[in-house]
Amino acid sequence: MNNILILGAGRSSTACINYVLRQAKEHNWFVVVADADLDLATQKVNNHPNGRGVWLDASKPSDRHQLISRADVVISLLPPQLHLEVAYDCIKLKKHLITASYVSKDIYKLSDDFRNKELIFMGEMGLDPGIDHMSAMQKIDEIKAMGGKITAFSSNAGGLVALDCLKKNPWRYKFTWNPRNVVKAGQGTAQYLEGGKFKYIPYNRLFREYRTIEIPGYEEEFEVYANRESLLYREAYGLDDIPTLYRGTIRYKGFCDAWNALVQIGLTDGTYPILDSEKITYHELMEAYLSKEGRSGASVKERVANLLGETEFSTVMKKLEWLGLFSKKKIGLENATPALILEDLLLKKWKLEPNDRDVIIMQHEFEYELEAKQHKLFSTLVLEGKDANDTAMARLVGLPLAIFAKQVMLGKITSTGVNIPVKKEIYGPVLDELKTYGVVFHEREEELPLQSQGA
Amino acid sequence: MNNILILGAGRSSTACINYVLRQAKEHNWFVVVADADLDLATQKVNNHPNGRGVWLDASKPSDRHQLISRADVVISLLPPQLHLEVAYDCIKLKKHLITASYVSKDIYKLSDDFRNKELIFMGEMGLDPGIDHMSAMQKIDEIKAMGGKITAFSSNAGGLVALDCLKKNPWRYKFTWNPRNVVKAGQGTAQYLEGGKFKYIPYNRLFREYRTIEIPGYEEEFEVYANRESLLYREAYGLDDIPTLYRGTIRYKGFCDAWNALVQIGLTDGTYPILDSEKITYHELMEAYLSKEGRSGASVKERVANLLGETEFSTVMKKLEWLGLFSKKKIGLENATPALILEDLLLKKWKLEPNDRDVIIMQHEFEYELEAKQHKLFSTLVLEGKDANDTAMARLVGLPLAIFAKQVMLGKITSTGVNIPVKKEIYGPVLDELKTYGVVFHEREEELPLQSQGA
Repeated sequence: MNNILILGAGRSSTACINYVLRQAKEHNWFVVVADADLDLATQKVNNHPNGRGVWLDASKPSDRHQLISRADVVISLLPPQLHLEVAYDCIKLKKHLITASYVSKDIYKLSDDFRNKELIFMGEMGLDPGIDHMSAMQKIDEIKAMGGKITAFSSNAGGLVALDCLKKNPWRYKFTWNPRNVVKAGQGTAQYLEGGKFKYIPYNRLFREYRTIEIPGYEEEFEVYANRESLLYREAYGLDDIPTLYRGTIRYKGFCDAWNALVQIGLTDGTYPILDSEKITYHELMEAYLSKEGRSGASVKERVANLLGETEFSTVMKKLEWLGLFSKKKIGLENATPALILEDLLLKKWKLEPNDRDVIIMQHEFEYELEAKQHKLFSTLVLEGKDANDTAMARLVGLPLAIFAKQVMLGKITSTGVNIPVKKEIYGPVLDELKTYGVVFHEREEELPLQSQGA
Repeated sequence: MNNILILGAGRSSTACINYVLRQAKEHNWFVVVADADLDLATQKVNNHPNGRGVWLDASKPSDRHQLISRADVVISLLPPQLHLEVAYDCIKLKKHLITASYVSKDIYKLSDDFRNKELIFMGEMGLDPGIDHMSAMQKIDEIKAMGGKITAFSSNAGGLVALDCLKKNPWRYKFTWNPRNVVKAGQGTAQYLEGGKFKYIPYNRLFREYRTIEIPGYEEEFEVYANRESLLYREAYGLDDIPTLYRGTIRYKGFCDAWNALVQIGLTDGTYPILDSEKITYHELMEAYLSKEGRSGASVKERVANLLGETEFSTVMKKLEWLGLFSKKKIGLENATPALILEDLLLKKWKLEPNDRDVIIMQHEFEYELEAKQHKLFSTLVLEGKDANDTAMARLVGLPLAIFAKQVMLGKITSTGVNIPVKKEIYGPVLDELKTYGVVFHEREEELPLQSQGA
């Protein structure tokens, strides 16, 4: 095998492309980086002798086929909705395919097709999903190998920004990830398990009913809101009978109450357009959400505070004001949903500045019984990026893809069919090599006497 | 024209069928009543010499065609989603069609087809939609004819039960209408106009931000929550430049706060199944919605009260308890959504007893300027049913359909194409005749000096 094709040269591709190019030099491979923006692709290859940037309209099957047919392994950083088409291509053209996106049901259905051609489709091989699976499964397999019985697993992760880069930002949050997904986060109903019972948190309470956790190295607590799909991990992780299973998203303190305010007002809804949205101001938009009259002469800001059960100068209200939601500037977006208007506003206010350093925080918490003792194990990753171009986010999404691609190129992977990285053969080498890039989970364990069951 | 076909002999058909049969005797028509339940259809015709009950599977095109081809006018009381198919049939077979359901976009597209064959499709010819359109348009046309300028229109309606039949029911509400629609009422975002500005109330605040109105003859105020689609009525009613336009649903006092509790808990959501729903109790279901620990030893009821910002024995909590939401009885429904579980519970608790009398309340409120005076006009309908079989709801849905069908049979309608009853030719005779059935709007008008505009 000599040829690697990387589809997509966007924001999160740099670490992946650079790693693959370094390996290409060592192993005499050739790397094609394809993007709809030829300049971007060329610039990312940066005249490397083992690589070339090419133009690709990924929506055109014949163009895709031409490129894919010349590769041995394909890494796709394309938008998730394109992966099914690329998967069909790879089966037809007999190529391995690696992505960092969630594996859809439609792609799982192709498992036999990949297996029959002795190919691997590796999905969820990024950060979250990706490193979360691998680091959790490594601990789960270790605990089970010791004879431990896992009774609770909680896994929380967040893409944040170093606190010293947030001094002028009262939300203490900036986008280091898909802004649309941040605006729509949590819509639906979060489901998880606690003490053997299913739990549900509807969206309208999700950001009110957050938890707090401690992360070693930080003085203040963090907030965690529940992810929608915790229950899916029971089967994927072989934890079918586990009584307590929770996955959440980490934010700095103060975020959830303020985001809850946006939810309660109605600004995260993407299902209907605001009428005349191009003509009105943010102030008028806020007024449009006020159905109750305030006391005579009350300002829109006072009435919003009242609606939220806040005082006019509370920290939550200050965050809303800082976003410009009470400004008399025109929104200037035609036929826009509230979610789109909010996203547009946040893109300006939550933009990563060139010298901002992002931080990835991931913490697994296991409770298990072993030798008549109750154990509580925390496994924590904190990794900072260098600046807005070289983010921890991009590194941690791109490196697992690239490292795994190398394994496939070197013929070290025997698994076939559709996979996510939960098997030791897969996660072992990837996690080992990630350590050299600073991806080190620190552990802290507490031991308690085993509590007697029941009353 | 000699033959009328009535599709559907369900709950709301009795008044319609009886009226049409009486007219059939007078005019020597023949009436076929078709239903999937032949006994029901036969029983509703009750051996009338001018009628016959027949069996029909309305989902089978050939069976429908056979019946429709023998009719001149078709009244459809079928579920709304079947009306498009029946409309195609009627165009093909050249028949007039009348329904009480909302006219969908797809049906509006058939307007030319009906018109080209000189046929009428009359939709929204029931109570709400139906009598609301007709009674409002009559006043609007009158005010305009006097030279008045309408500045505000608010229209509220509710299907309730006479207060003396509700003494054992703390919710003071029972189903007189489609239970599923009651459970899902308001989901989405309510939109209306106030003082020339668009207003939005998202579902999570809809039942918190209700209005109160007075109805002549009642000592206590009523609650009104906003309907989703008020803005549609601007065009339909020729009120394109009206600054204030609102439509709402009327409930007795105390309803909205309690329903809001169900919304906040998450029980009106029909988008996901409760896991193991057949095995758990209502008490366990409530516990599944509690993510925050209460103070040590707090009961599920106390924790729910705390979640809602209520005390354990508040009137809202008493209503939840009365429904059985804290009972340790099994739910016993497989793979059920929260909305379905709630509907199933409400069907038992909110069932109309044989001697219960329902009440329809409808009130329009107009503000208009005429001869340098500001007028405020209330137009109110209050109509009680006789018992659970002969409800005001069924009468007010069925009679407009039947009266209009008579007009068509007698050749008095010249309109063609797809219509809703907003034209004088249509609403005039129907409202006139409805008066003899007690459908009388009482008016109350206030006159104020015209306020100067602006500040």
